[in-house]
Amino acid sequence: MLGQMMNRPLSVIEILKYGAEIHADAEIVSVRTEGDLHRQSYRETYARTGKLAHALKALGVGHGDRVATLAWNGYRHFELYYAISGMGAVCHTINPRLSAGQMIYILSHADDRVLFTDVTFIPILEALQDQLPSDLQIVAMTDAAHMPDTTLDVLCYEDLLAPQDTDYDWPELPEETAAGLCYTSGTTGHPKGSLYSHRSTVLHALFVAVTIPRSLHEGARLLPVVPMFHVNSWGMPYAAPIVGASLIMPGGKLDGPSLYDLMENEKVTASWGVPTVWLGLRAEIDARGKPPSALDQVVIGGSAAPRSMIEFFEKMDIDVCHAWGMTEMSPVGTTGQLPVTMQDKPFEDRMALKSLQGRRMFGVDLKIVGDDGQRLPHDGEAVGELYVRGNGVVAGYFDNDEATKGAVDAEGWFGTGDVASISPDGYLSIQDRSKDLIKSGGEWISSIDLENVAMSHPDVANCAVIAIAHPKWDERPVLVVVGKDGKHPPLEEFHTLMEPHFAKWQLPDDVLYVDALPLTATGKVSKLTLRKQFADYTLPDVG
Amino acid sequence: MLGQMMNRPLSVIEILKYGAEIHADAEIVSVRTEGDLHRQSYRETYARTGKLAHALKALGVGHGDRVATLAWNGYRHFELYYAISGMGAVCHTINPRLSAGQMIYILSHADDRVLFTDVTFIPILEALQDQLPSDLQIVAMTDAAHMPDTTLDVLCYEDLLAPQDTDYDWPELPEETAAGLCYTSGTTGHPKGSLYSHRSTVLHALFVAVTIPRSLHEGARLLPVVPMFHVNSWGMPYAAPIVGASLIMPGGKLDGPSLYDLMENEKVTASWGVPTVWLGLRAEIDARGKPPSALDQVVIGGSAAPRSMIEFFEKMDIDVCHAWGMTEMSPVGTTGQLPVTMQDKPFEDRMALKSLQGRRMFGVDLKIVGDDGQRLPHDGEAVGELYVRGNGVVAGYFDNDEATKGAVDAEGWFGTGDVASISPDGYLSIQDRSKDLIKSGGEWISSIDLENVAMSHPDVANCAVIAIAHPKWDERPVLVVVGKDGKHPPLEEFHTLMEPHFAKWQLPDDVLYVDALPLTATGKVSKLTLRKQFADYTLPDVG
Ligand SMILES: Nc1ncnc2c1ncn2[C@@H]1O[C@H](COP(=O)(O)O)[C@@H](O)[C@H]1O
Repeated sequence: MLGQMMNRPLSVIEILKYGAEIHADAEIVSVRTEGDLHRQSYRETYARTGKLAHALKALGVGHGDRVATLAWNGYRHFELYYAISGMGAVCHTINPRLSAGQMIYILSHADDRVLFTDVTFIPILEALQDQLPSDLQIVAMTDAAHMPDTTLDVLCYEDLLAPQDTDYDWPELPEETAAGLCYTSGTTGHPKGSLYSHRSTVLHALFVAVTIPRSLHEGARLLPVVPMFHVNSWGMPYAAPIVGASLIMPGGKLDGPSLYDLMENEKVTASWGVPTVWLGLRAEIDARGKPPSALDQVVIGGSAAPRSMIEFFEKMDIDVCHAWGMTEMSPVGTTGQLPVTMQDKPFEDRMALKSLQGRRMFGVDLKIVGDDGQRLPHDGEAVGELYVRGNGVVAGYFDNDEATKGAVDAEGWFGTGDVASISPDGYLSIQDRSKDLIKSGGEWISSIDLENVAMSHPDVANCAVIAIAHPKWDERPVLVVVGKDGKHPPLEEFHTLMEPHFAKWQLPDDVLYVDALPLTATGKVSKLTLRKQFADYTLPDVG
Repeated sequence: MLGQMMNRPLSVIEILKYGAEIHADAEIVSVRTEGDLHRQSYRETYARTGKLAHALKALGVGHGDRVATLAWNGYRHFELYYAISGMGAVCHTINPRLSAGQMIYILSHADDRVLFTDVTFIPILEALQDQLPSDLQIVAMTDAAHMPDTTLDVLCYEDLLAPQDTDYDWPELPEETAAGLCYTSGTTGHPKGSLYSHRSTVLHALFVAVTIPRSLHEGARLLPVVPMFHVNSWGMPYAAPIVGASLIMPGGKLDGPSLYDLMENEKVTASWGVPTVWLGLRAEIDARGKPPSALDQVVIGGSAAPRSMIEFFEKMDIDVCHAWGMTEMSPVGTTGQLPVTMQDKPFEDRMALKSLQGRRMFGVDLKIVGDDGQRLPHDGEAVGELYVRGNGVVAGYFDNDEATKGAVDAEGWFGTGDVASISPDGYLSIQDRSKDLIKSGGEWISSIDLENVAMSHPDVANCAVIAIAHPKWDERPVLVVVGKDGKHPPLEEFHTLMEPHFAKWQLPDDVLYVDALPLTATGKVSKLTLRKQFADYTLPDVG
């Protein structure tokens, strides 16, 4: 028997509409490319979002069309999130750190109609000019006075908005309608797109809001360090207007001193980002002898938060919430706030627990399975591949049948490629990665893609790329090679081969020579053994 | 274009499963009919809920069957909520304050298979024994040692649970599946049932949790004074396990001293209820000279919170959240926490704002319309009938085509029967009620039903029942009569006529005689004019 309740489609624009009405004076403060600090309330933001939707329509954007962004965290990027999804199109956030080849691939794979870009990234686009789809319209996210001098044919964001009406008649869309698109690296080949829906986005925002209230509450001043091109800034732009938190947007200024000043001046209460960015802030806090005065919580995720980093903040009475998730999960999966029963426990015990990846967020299910595909117990001992399920989790990849086929198991769970144990009380402990990827400063590098290029060197008999721990970048790639006829080509030769296909920061930091690569029972290169073999190895820049 | 996300059905049992895993040690503390104070964690509660589901199955309860409860707030009632919905049946909470006739009507209209009752209500059932459906199984919510001595054929709750397994294989249900049923008085005739779904229940819980975090957060100790037979205790039993709040259940002990002691002993941080119950607590606070030590917020709704009551609590630094809603809304519609920007404003201004009914909760839309059906502006001036829309709002009534037909307007909005204005910044101000109902101590009395019986008195030419303000009960009914041939029958004669059809507390407090009743333009009795006419009238027990 069915209930007799209204079934109203969950909708992204309803979030901003609510924020504009109920938390009208909460604000978005943005460090912008124009060089100043810009402030506008949710009320103003909603009005501008209406104008933007009219402008998009005028540009020919229709229902289901993809509209790309290449931008820092800022109010215009926020407006794009809501206007694009609100009018029924799909907001495709592009990571500017991708290699040129990947960027061109996803622009054409997504078939973007319009690309909104911060002026910062104009040089990147100029370099790609010949390869850009010919009908792609480019809009520079600035005003007339700051339009870049460029060979590209670009429109001006503020000029597009100026003549438009603030009232837009937002369509009522089925809640499964696509709202956002974000590509992430596969272990090999092209990036794959997670296609978020209105339903998944709204539910994820609600789940995050009830799970991390210390960051997300009325009057909070939240600084998303994690970029809006990284899985929607972990959902902050969607959760903040619901609860009435202000957003303090750092633009491209992510160094320690800039973050510190922004936090201090804007009385930031919480900030979320990957471990790498906290190193800069940490150094600045050390230099100034005290943390930003209002800072109450940092959420660290995207890579494992080192215990020393957690302790650093906690010793200053700044709560650390260690979170785990992934692009395919919208992204939050687990979060590490401690239960109240732990509050009186010794510091050591609390920090040990906080070093784990936390427990599942409401709306997320976890399971670990062994090599035989059977479920393993959540006993804190058994280690298996981690699978997840929930309304925020992808069921496949955008326009990619092959990747979609392998995405979920027979029971309908998504395989994360992470290897983990789960304790009886639900704490996730990520132990390893089964997918052949390296995460450097929060960004992915494909070992396999690097290996494929390295193999094209005439003096290479066999090779493997492994992740080596790095104090700043978490992991860096190192190339391990079996030379042909005892030959040992230098690192530069590999870089030369790789440069056309990869971003600079994706290239291996070193090449090491071995006589043979260790193999698994099934005859594959055993990266596990290889990593153990080089456990004592130190990277050139760490030494 | 559709997104490519998993579409997992929202499900009530997932809430308790989550609470049992992530907030395992949060507890339900219950004043129970056995006479003691009982405590159990969410972990234990979930295990017992599994047993209960097995027991229900053994009693023959199947998918979609209705299972009734007649019970105070307590852990067994809570277990019933989850076990019944979790197994795919419908939890039908019955208000023990209904008249015998209404109770019999809804038991048979709902076609309940099993009735779970607190031993307190056994006498009520015994009095109805002849009229109870013959195949209705009755379960007393107690253990073998406390089974009532009764002429009824009753099963024992704890005996049913004892042999069962804690693991229950909860079915995966479409999220629109009915989960709960709650009848509410119509302006005339029989009560009408709101049939909540899993979707509406889970979404409402999330909406409430993000909207009233001061009550609903991890470690909070929440005391639901509003009964679980009143619209699911305003959703507290569903929101608390998500956020990790403990529930302190008062059972039938709702007097001031009992509530005070429970709040003090259990360090209650927040409590929700109708204005009438706060009077008792208020008197007790006055007597003891200080409020319960941990009490931080009271939510007052169900009837307008008097400003003096709001000020009383606020002066003691207890936050008052004035909320408005209704059975047909799951029930929360608007809530009165002030925006941070108001925090530094003078006390008078803040109290004036808190006296209004608050602003819409996330997920609820409001509109007011004039007599011509046209929308009125939200300017704080225009007064019109209030309509609502949202995932927590009914689209009709259970098995009641006639009531369903009139429930929503052409645009799909539900008519609340409240008359209100809405300010430009979203504050709802309830001005009047267009539905002919009187709300006494949080419970409904139908003016029309009383009038119909009064008209059957041979000496009555015409009559009307109006609401008169009462300091304790908010409103009390008074009968206004035009006598035939100058006859003035006394109140007792009307009571004698009415008693078979109404609960005692529903009878009018007084009868007043007039020469004629004022009429509206369309020739109906103008209750508005009548109420104005008796503005200075004082009820007999108030004087
Ligand atoms: N805060 C409030 N102020 C005024 N009336 C209220 C308030 N809350 C609830 N009501 C009344 O109670 C009705 C809902 O009653 P019920 O369905 O029993 O919860 C509403 O339609 C209003 O008439």
